[in-house]
Amino acid sequence: MANGKIPYKIYLSEEEAPKFWYNVKAHMRGAHAPFIDPVTGRACTSAALKKVFCDECVEQELNDVDELIEIPDGIRSFYRMFRPSPLVRAYFLEQMLGTPAEIYYKFEGNNTSGSHKLNSAAAQAYYAHEQGLKALTTETGAGQWGTALSMAAAFYGLQLDIFMVKVSAEQKPHRREVMRTYGARVIPSPSDTTAAGRKLLAEFPGTGGSLGCAIAEAVEKAAKTESCRYVLGSVLDHVLLHQSVIGQECKIALDKYGVVPDVIIGCCGGGSNFGGLIAPYMGERLQGDNNVEFVGVEPASCPTLTRGKFAYDFCDSAKTTPMAKMYTLGCGFMPSANHAGGLRYHGMSPVISQLYHDGYIRAVAVEQTSVFRAAVDFAKCEGILPAPESSHAIKVAIDEALECKRTGKKKKILFGLTGTGYFDLSAYKQFNDGVMSDVIPNDDDLKKGFESIPRCKANEGLL
Amino acid sequence: MANGKIPYKIYLSEEEAPKFWYNVKAHMRGAHAPFIDPVTGRACTSAALKKVFCDECVEQELNDVDELIEIPDGIRSFYRMFRPSPLVRAYFLEQMLGTPAEIYYKFEGNNTSGSHKLNSAAAQAYYAHEQGLKALTTETGAGQWGTALSMAAAFYGLQLDIFMVKVSAEQKPHRREVMRTYGARVIPSPSDTTAAGRKLLAEFPGTGGSLGCAIAEAVEKAAKTESCRYVLGSVLDHVLLHQSVIGQECKIALDKYGVVPDVIIGCCGGGSNFGGLIAPYMGERLQGDNNVEFVGVEPASCPTLTRGKFAYDFCDSAKTTPMAKMYTLGCGFMPSANHAGGLRYHGMSPVISQLYHDGYIRAVAVEQTSVFRAAVDFAKCEGILPAPESSHAIKVAIDEALECKRTGKKKKILFGLTGTGYFDLSAYKQFNDGVMSDVIPNDDDLKKGFESIPRCKANEGLL
Repeated sequence: MANGKIPYKIYLSEEEAPKFWYNVKAHMRGAHAPFIDPVTGRACTSAALKKVFCDECVEQELNDVDELIEIPDGIRSFYRMFRPSPLVRAYFLEQMLGTPAEIYYKFEGNNTSGSHKLNSAAAQAYYAHEQGLKALTTETGAGQWGTALSMAAAFYGLQLDIFMVKVSAEQKPHRREVMRTYGARVIPSPSDTTAAGRKLLAEFPGTGGSLGCAIAEAVEKAAKTESCRYVLGSVLDHVLLHQSVIGQECKIALDKYGVVPDVIIGCCGGGSNFGGLIAPYMGERLQGDNNVEFVGVEPASCPTLTRGKFAYDFCDSAKTTPMAKMYTLGCGFMPSANHAGGLRYHGMSPVISQLYHDGYIRAVAVEQTSVFRAAVDFAKCEGILPAPESSHAIKVAIDEALECKRTGKKKKILFGLTGTGYFDLSAYKQFNDGVMSDVIPNDDDLKKGFESIPRCKANEGLL
Repeated sequence: MANGKIPYKIYLSEEEAPKFWYNVKAHMRGAHAPFIDPVTGRACTSAALKKVFCDECVEQELNDVDELIEIPDGIRSFYRMFRPSPLVRAYFLEQMLGTPAEIYYKFEGNNTSGSHKLNSAAAQAYYAHEQGLKALTTETGAGQWGTALSMAAAFYGLQLDIFMVKVSAEQKPHRREVMRTYGARVIPSPSDTTAAGRKLLAEFPGTGGSLGCAIAEAVEKAAKTESCRYVLGSVLDHVLLHQSVIGQECKIALDKYGVVPDVIIGCCGGGSNFGGLIAPYMGERLQGDNNVEFVGVEPASCPTLTRGKFAYDFCDSAKTTPMAKMYTLGCGFMPSANHAGGLRYHGMSPVISQLYHDGYIRAVAVEQTSVFRAAVDFAKCEGILPAPESSHAIKVAIDEALECKRTGKKKKILFGLTGTGYFDLSAYKQFNDGVMSDVIPNDDDLKKGFESIPRCKANEGLL
């Protein structure tokens, strides 16, 4: 076992670690359609966005010119805590599958937040601190993003209010406790601390809340608090930019051994992990310098790319945010219960959406029972208990490797292992007990979702 | 920050990784007093021990001659999954404390079992597999050891029955689920599957079980199952030997940068982590080649070294095991509730006990509220949420560093960060809520415990 020239794990030294994020938009002709203010019907201005987000993040959001954007020293210093993350050659998995393929995965779970989310949390907290802000607000569902941001806020000395979907806060008290340990205030949403929360509570007294409401509360709270901004953990271009540190590290590590992946696979929720993982390789592909295949994997229960529409839609279900042109199931789409909380999102990063629309990305939807089967096989031979989200990529990587076994092709497969499943054990229990099921939306469910996509000027000819 | 010559993290390459465990007993004159069979009153024979444990583990248990014992390829291959573990220079902690000291820690938590336990689990499962055994049994309390062994058993294709203290199985369903995911059968103890379990159930129908009973059940089950042995996760010499991979890696990493620690600090429960961490440095010290100070840290609620007796005692509370000469609070001692489950043990590794008795180790007992305070400070600046057990070492390392701040000494401090606290969040909640308390045994409590130490020939003159 593990006797090839390539080590089981490639760790970059501090000198080798990336000094730049990779902005794939520099190579997308016209990047993607701009955000639209639903009130004015016009593209959002930088000034308007800066009222909500940190200045530097807005600059990055709107930058479709510079391929490389320097990672400031203050962020690289923070990254040293948990980066470079290991690039693993999955020798044991290859052996178990009996495949001629080479399988590599980039493991982002070796930090207390348990996922890649910390890459952008660190950057956003740093920029807030540099701007002289004192506080941040955000929302969290399952809690990975909230945990990551609480760590970054503690490090840079910022106050942090996290609006956590009430039902999640009750179901995941341990996630909540990590955030509290890092000094964040965790407010179950809907709460009586904001007008948006009070409105919802008056309408639906017993509600367990929603991500849409939590976003609305966090945005409102940021606007009403001095020296405070709102931060978001996925979907947006600057978040994908920060996540490109994943792809940059992969490329540096694989280049050292002369390896160019034939296919790169990542799970797709809002798209930030996948966008970050593929960034430098996609940049090359857009310039005609490689022929890598990019595969985004989504849950069959929330098939945004494979069954959604490419249209302008709100980023939240409460319809309070600007509209983005993206693949969407409709902001009113309610995905069925699925344990990959991080993939239950009606929309998709505008960058990923545009690249998919232009034919650079293949999308696959998989069912959760098959995902958990792959997860358990992986855990037993590679020793890491993966997050349900990450396991979507594992499932498709295994399928690719088995296809190589049939065809004899020696493909080089790279996938993103975004995090660990230590806080997802009730989902594993359901699988272990044999009582997990797959619920896939039928055409009527989708139709209902599509009806929530706004009928507006921007969507003329698209719907 | 982090701008010295020494990187934030030192990862060894696969070529640099240790090929040998370090057997400190080779440098202890007479090693330590042998195990005694309570029935015959004589030293346990190799043959008797081999009925319970794997052959090779017994050989290692009784080896007090060879300084270096080769790590077989099959184990080194498994180790590649999660080793070498990072040796971290705690630049951020140093900065927060404003200390002139250099602080280093060896982080063993980057694997799914969440702790160093996997080092010995891998070795013991490998040897069982090599011996042609088909199955293993063990017990687990909080679940870290059980998790580690379930991973190793899955990897080497062994069946595994884990007797988990019933009250722990109910309190920690998530730990239990990890073990099930890795294919282990988790049996809440006491159970009706063994005579020992049935006896206890008949006597105390509603009991939540104890580690002593779980050990008795696991030993009985192993004896009655074909091709099966019992394995233990701490205390024994061969377990310390396997854990010496920690110290070996530390030494290789620090030697590269010319660093010799002035003080090495580890938490002490059964002693395996501490024994493994200090092994090569202690070996040198015993030969007069260095002057390192070794500090074992235990909870004030279970002060085995600082307030215990050096005598022959049973390793379990059910009095079924051989007797070991060790520091002990008495096998009947019931430590008060403390969140560091891994440190709630009445005895101490015979190797550590002997070295402590001979004056080579200093022991410190600390209270859990101060331990959690240190843990939270550490988490905020170093980004890792530590296990309560590990945090005992953090607490004393911080105290040492602050002492350096007062004296101006530039000590080099190395401590063992044995694991993560992801499954200990109810303990953190108690701390965050401000309702954690310290319960320290009074002299009467200790006296009661001492009365459970056997009055036998071996203890003449000791009690």
